[in-house]
Amino acid sequence: MVFAPDFDPTDPVAVLTELIRCRSVTPNEGGALSALQTMLEPLGFSVDRPTFSDADTPDVENLFAARGAGPHLVFAGHTDVVPPGEEADWQVPPFSADIVDGELYGRGAVDMKGGIAAFIAAVARQIAENRMPEGRVSLLITGDEEGPAVNGTVKLLDWTVKEKGERFDACLVGEPTNPDRLGDMIKIGRRGSLSAEVVVHGRQGHVAYPHLADNPLRTVLSIGESLLAEPLDEGTEAFPPSNCEITSIDTGNPSVNVVPARARLFFNVRFSDVWTSESLKAELTRRIDAGATGGRYRAGREPAKVEISWRERPAEPFLTRSEPLIEAISEAVKEVTGSTAKLSTTGGTSDARFIRFVCPVVEFGLVGQTMHMTDERVPLADLEALTEIYDQFISRWFAAQP
Amino acid sequence: MVFAPDFDPTDPVAVLTELIRCRSVTPNEGGALSALQTMLEPLGFSVDRPTFSDADTPDVENLFAARGAGPHLVFAGHTDVVPPGEEADWQVPPFSADIVDGELYGRGAVDMKGGIAAFIAAVARQIAENRMPEGRVSLLITGDEEGPAVNGTVKLLDWTVKEKGERFDACLVGEPTNPDRLGDMIKIGRRGSLSAEVVVHGRQGHVAYPHLADNPLRTVLSIGESLLAEPLDEGTEAFPPSNCEITSIDTGNPSVNVVPARARLFFNVRFSDVWTSESLKAELTRRIDAGATGGRYRAGREPAKVEISWRERPAEPFLTRSEPLIEAISEAVKEVTGSTAKLSTTGGTSDARFIRFVCPVVEFGLVGQTMHMTDERVPLADLEALTEIYDQFISRWFAAQP
Repeated sequence: MVFAPDFDPTDPVAVLTELIRCRSVTPNEGGALSALQTMLEPLGFSVDRPTFSDADTPDVENLFAARGAGPHLVFAGHTDVVPPGEEADWQVPPFSADIVDGELYGRGAVDMKGGIAAFIAAVARQIAENRMPEGRVSLLITGDEEGPAVNGTVKLLDWTVKEKGERFDACLVGEPTNPDRLGDMIKIGRRGSLSAEVVVHGRQGHVAYPHLADNPLRTVLSIGESLLAEPLDEGTEAFPPSNCEITSIDTGNPSVNVVPARARLFFNVRFSDVWTSESLKAELTRRIDAGATGGRYRAGREPAKVEISWRERPAEPFLTRSEPLIEAISEAVKEVTGSTAKLSTTGGTSDARFIRFVCPVVEFGLVGQTMHMTDERVPLADLEALTEIYDQFISRWFAAQP
Repeated sequence: MVFAPDFDPTDPVAVLTELIRCRSVTPNEGGALSALQTMLEPLGFSVDRPTFSDADTPDVENLFAARGAGPHLVFAGHTDVVPPGEEADWQVPPFSADIVDGELYGRGAVDMKGGIAAFIAAVARQIAENRMPEGRVSLLITGDEEGPAVNGTVKLLDWTVKEKGERFDACLVGEPTNPDRLGDMIKIGRRGSLSAEVVVHGRQGHVAYPHLADNPLRTVLSIGESLLAEPLDEGTEAFPPSNCEITSIDTGNPSVNVVPARARLFFNVRFSDVWTSESLKAELTRRIDAGATGGRYRAGREPAKVEISWRERPAEPFLTRSEPLIEAISEAVKEVTGSTAKLSTTGGTSDARFIRFVCPVVEFGLVGQTMHMTDERVPLADLEALTEIYDQFISRWFAAQP
């Protein structure tokens, strides 16, 4: 791994350029972790690169780099990126890190090599200017966040705790968190996520004799009504109201003369801390059963048979309550951007859902608008501002430790 | 075509046995029309067997047999049958016409070679006993009722009117009409039938950000509610209430994290004479638009784009108002069975929907319970009773002619 001779780790543009040029499309390492190691060792970090394996999923390389002793602040992120799609659709090649009109283009520019670059530049500036606080700073970087996420953060956390004997006091995840403008939003927790497939059984028949059949799509409409008509909750101080989306209804009946025998309904709920996944399952089961039993489209028929399969490991909602951590990032954002960031729990899940079991965790990074899109890009001004925010954050968090 | 030496056309069991032994699985003639010709010519019928052709559908042979002059009563039916399925699943081979415990088994026993056999036996009895009324009696038999129905009754009617110069005064269709017992039900009309596919467009997105997406399945639920919540009508004296069945909803979204871009909904309406297909299309379009525009699951979003494709030629509802025709069949049924048959317009469509354009039409035949099923069969007692009913019906109808 050879960088430009004048490579300067205090410059986030230089760091990000090196990272984007590594084609680390998940689950490939693509040279990105080697680049991090080459940058971090001269800054005094000791670097480990454990590879994890599991059945039916690719082996994935990860990185843990740590420096110093004392209260332990860890920065978490990933170097793997989603595929660029058709490279010809991009204004500039997706792994060239070209700068056009003050914006640096490339897959991973905001999600989230840009966040990693800003954190490394912030640490490098503190070291260069000899103002690095006493304490332990580390980077926990996975190559399996955009993929199956089996050989990534979960195993890397476990490995650092059990094999390396690390203890963590606080974590900052550098995922893009801002909807529109740097300084909009800090994430201090996440909603839970629960998915299911419901198979609804009916009785096949001729559409001209509906009383002899039991149309499962009438039951599906009743279940849909039961799931959606009444809000699950009104939200809480920290969480927006829980929301259910029906993501697919499938029947596959080719004949318009035939009442089908069965239909399938799939849904996902993003839920507030009013619920655990268990209490929510009970409520959703009650609603599904109500739709399959009564339901105004079912015309007094016997209860329909339904089978509910809860899919994947549900994610529980969580909320970070560490005042010093939230204050450190909020004040850093305010100082650099002038904005009071909203403390939010909205949006999709992230690896924070695993990290919160070992220490308090907050998330703050770039503006997410171009993530996963063609022409993903970051304004150079945002990259510099995020570097300054991370710099301030590190100083403020350590200053608040006893 | 050689029958048993003692073949007796006044015996409906003998006639039906010959017909069932012809493997006339749609669209194959299978010898069934030849058998009819061989039976009818000795009874004084002149027989035509026109074959009709059309694009993308098999050529199909049909039969028109007529006898006498004066008021014209036509019996309409079909010799083609649906496939027997797995022949090994049958108690007796499906084309052997074996009699077990007083029931004659075979594909077409009730739908509707049995009806044809009863009509031929009734005519043969009247001729043998020299009590055939003055007038014209004919059989209009297609080989394309169970198939695409393109080269069948529609073209055969047109051909008899235009090529043969026939005029019809009344028609009896011999399809099975009785739900449970011979004498239950005479059909004096049929509901209309109208089908459509509705493509519902939305905006794809991540389930965690539903406000940025527009879930087409929320629109589908709203359209389903709009279609089903209020009855289309309360029915009329002759017709049951119109009924809408949603026959398929399909999305094909494999990812439970993604709000799909579109969904498809298919439905069929069987409708009373409150509506024409045009007025019903207008009402259904209004309901679909209401679901796509408002709808309590759509949370104030802009109207969803929907595309409605009306499928196939709709069948219009019709009602036979000929008192002499309805009385002739009702009194014949009452005389033979002791039952007052219900005059009904329920059930699926039949070729009566085409015949009603040329003359008044009623339908009366066997009990439909085993039609299209494994072990389709007819009690010999029913076959004899239907022959007597048809015999009485012919006499009564001609007696009522001026």
